[in-house]
Amino acid sequence: MLDLQEMGRAAKLASRQIATLPTKIKNQTLLAIAAELEARTGDILAANALDLADARAKGLSAAMLDRLALNEQRIAALAAATRRIVDLPDPVGADIESRVLPNGIRLSKRRIPIGVLGVIYEARPNVTIDIATLCLKTGNAIILRGGSETLRSNVALVQAIQAALTQMSLPTAAVQYIDNPDRALVTEFLRLDQYVDMIVPRGGASLHKLCREHSTIPVITGGMGVCHIYVDTTADLERALAIIENSKVKRPSVCNALDTLLVNQAIAPVFLPKIAGHLAQFNVELRADARALPILQQSGFGALTKPAGPEDFDQEWLGLILGVKLVDTIDEAIQHIQEHSLDHTESILTNTLAHALHFVNEVNSSAVFVNASTYFNDGGQFGLGAEVAISTQKLHARGPMGLEELTTYKWVGIGNGQIRE
Amino acid sequence: MLDLQEMGRAAKLASRQIATLPTKIKNQTLLAIAAELEARTGDILAANALDLADARAKGLSAAMLDRLALNEQRIAALAAATRRIVDLPDPVGADIESRVLPNGIRLSKRRIPIGVLGVIYEARPNVTIDIATLCLKTGNAIILRGGSETLRSNVALVQAIQAALTQMSLPTAAVQYIDNPDRALVTEFLRLDQYVDMIVPRGGASLHKLCREHSTIPVITGGMGVCHIYVDTTADLERALAIIENSKVKRPSVCNALDTLLVNQAIAPVFLPKIAGHLAQFNVELRADARALPILQQSGFGALTKPAGPEDFDQEWLGLILGVKLVDTIDEAIQHIQEHSLDHTESILTNTLAHALHFVNEVNSSAVFVNASTYFNDGGQFGLGAEVAISTQKLHARGPMGLEELTTYKWVGIGNGQIRE
Repeated sequence: MLDLQEMGRAAKLASRQIATLPTKIKNQTLLAIAAELEARTGDILAANALDLADARAKGLSAAMLDRLALNEQRIAALAAATRRIVDLPDPVGADIESRVLPNGIRLSKRRIPIGVLGVIYEARPNVTIDIATLCLKTGNAIILRGGSETLRSNVALVQAIQAALTQMSLPTAAVQYIDNPDRALVTEFLRLDQYVDMIVPRGGASLHKLCREHSTIPVITGGMGVCHIYVDTTADLERALAIIENSKVKRPSVCNALDTLLVNQAIAPVFLPKIAGHLAQFNVELRADARALPILQQSGFGALTKPAGPEDFDQEWLGLILGVKLVDTIDEAIQHIQEHSLDHTESILTNTLAHALHFVNEVNSSAVFVNASTYFNDGGQFGLGAEVAISTQKLHARGPMGLEELTTYKWVGIGNGQIRE
Repeated sequence: MLDLQEMGRAAKLASRQIATLPTKIKNQTLLAIAAELEARTGDILAANALDLADARAKGLSAAMLDRLALNEQRIAALAAATRRIVDLPDPVGADIESRVLPNGIRLSKRRIPIGVLGVIYEARPNVTIDIATLCLKTGNAIILRGGSETLRSNVALVQAIQAALTQMSLPTAAVQYIDNPDRALVTEFLRLDQYVDMIVPRGGASLHKLCREHSTIPVITGGMGVCHIYVDTTADLERALAIIENSKVKRPSVCNALDTLLVNQAIAPVFLPKIAGHLAQFNVELRADARALPILQQSGFGALTKPAGPEDFDQEWLGLILGVKLVDTIDEAIQHIQEHSLDHTESILTNTLAHALHFVNEVNSSAVFVNASTYFNDGGQFGLGAEVAISTQKLHARGPMGLEELTTYKWVGIGNGQIRE
């Protein structure tokens, strides 16, 4: 019988035991996890085969089945990713800043683990390993709750992690998995504020809403975007084609993919036919506003163009569809973004310095680019080494959350008898 | 008729207008607020007199009445505090870090305002000015909700602020006040996640619980502590008397005041009579555990000592009472703290280096001191200039929240046509 309170209590205790582990021990643990993943490949694949059989019986799409599926190569890739975390710098214990107060107290702001994290996620089993290993590297305990489709695969992966923890004489409660698919447990999980310090939902809008509404634990929301590119009058139009293609087509299913293209009306007669022709090669469907529509229809690429519906500029498409809208000025573009963005990623294509500065000043999404693809908003691309999620909220962390974002700080004051006047 | 949705919408719009104001304009606004406070002293005192009359009629305690009361000196002090914020550095717009990515994109992490803050507070009207001015200095809009006892005083203070905003041609919606005491509005306020980015409750445990349970907006909790001092075997006992006195007696009603004294049993026979005698001068009542009790009773200061009840080590006393408990080892002290602390402030008194390091490593409260008073956990003392609240949660900010903690960041990437491979 699964007892969430007991899991929370054990996680809290474990978090204290691993919080101050030397980096060397944490790295040895990561290497042990990689070795266990390889050694248990057969068991993990057997568990995954059962999940896949159920998923096929339920009629899940080929794309979903592919997300669920593990094979020897994918497990080897998980082990390799785990070994790469060994090489990342350990942020824990560093003094972020320090000063000596006038009274002689040496005060520093010291980086420490957050404590216990709760992660609720869907589908892909590799998330289990990614997040657990990043948490261990930063001395955090974690309670995982994956989707029911991958229950057996996830349990097999967590068993590999726990075996490595046991080898290292570390508490297995540092990485725990809620292995009961009962949805009521999620609501209970969200109220374990006595033990859990942060909840990270990785999934769709409904999961985020559930967490916002029911959690008594601080929630990091993110991973969803309505991303914009604004093509200004002075943009290099050839480069614009490549940037828009990269933002929209390279990986349309991710949250930093382009959703809405805003084009200055002055260049629209020239640029819209160009971009429509360019994107037609990739079968991108355009949803055009009333002013863009006639230009696109007369461009010879009208077959892939539809009039935009009332909600089309609030869509995260996650596929080969792109909203297209004309604007008269950069301020109209900024205003549209402020009204429709989910604060994920936006980019301006321009060669006008004042416009670049204005856009960067006024748009407060987690990442704002000038003359670059929206697809760059990513922990690996930013040099953070890895990411747990992409946050679009205002508190704690924004954009890719790497190892540092899994830490918090405490103030340490070393005195020799000071009292406050 | 108060329309919270409309207030939220207006605050969001105002937040965009003030987010990028030059520091000079923000400072001129603060000076205008100080001048308005002085010019409107008569109006503010008249409003405060009505609040005070009601409070007296309701039979509020003399201490509460004193917290509510304004007078010319107090208003002058508010104006002076506002002028001091002019001198604090403006954190907004600075790049916290920056790098050039291998592909040539110049990436920086830039400090920006959070957006719209919601602050729910009790009693003292000076909080209205403190928080509103810190928010304006950092380019944040704010919606305030004070206690019903100070409604008219707060409205008069906010009118002074709004008059200054109007003088500066800034939107008055940057500082708004919920001037209806209906409690149902608080719950509605907590669900304005479309407009409000952060909620800061400043009040007791029940307000914090209300916010945790009902808010769909990220909440910064804090301002409550069960604070500990552990007196180790090698502590300088004379300095210990002064530090404990300072932590307990100097201002017993604040959240960083000492609540529980843990004493190593080896020095208890010598130290307990000393500290009991010292604190008896200030009429501090001791609540002693079973091992400390007989020593204190035989000390000659037993009159002020009672046996500790089962919940006495989970009390934030906010007055002249102190829990006293003997421990055999530093680890027993740490374990007691981990079980009973609210993560606010703890201090160890020792001259043993290994013990100081161990305590600092294992105790993860927002501030951890060695050989210093708990009363130092304060924004002014830490050199932050001012504070909005003292956070005891793990995300975003811990300990005193000054101007930097009222900001977040965005990633800015400047390219020249980069696409992701």
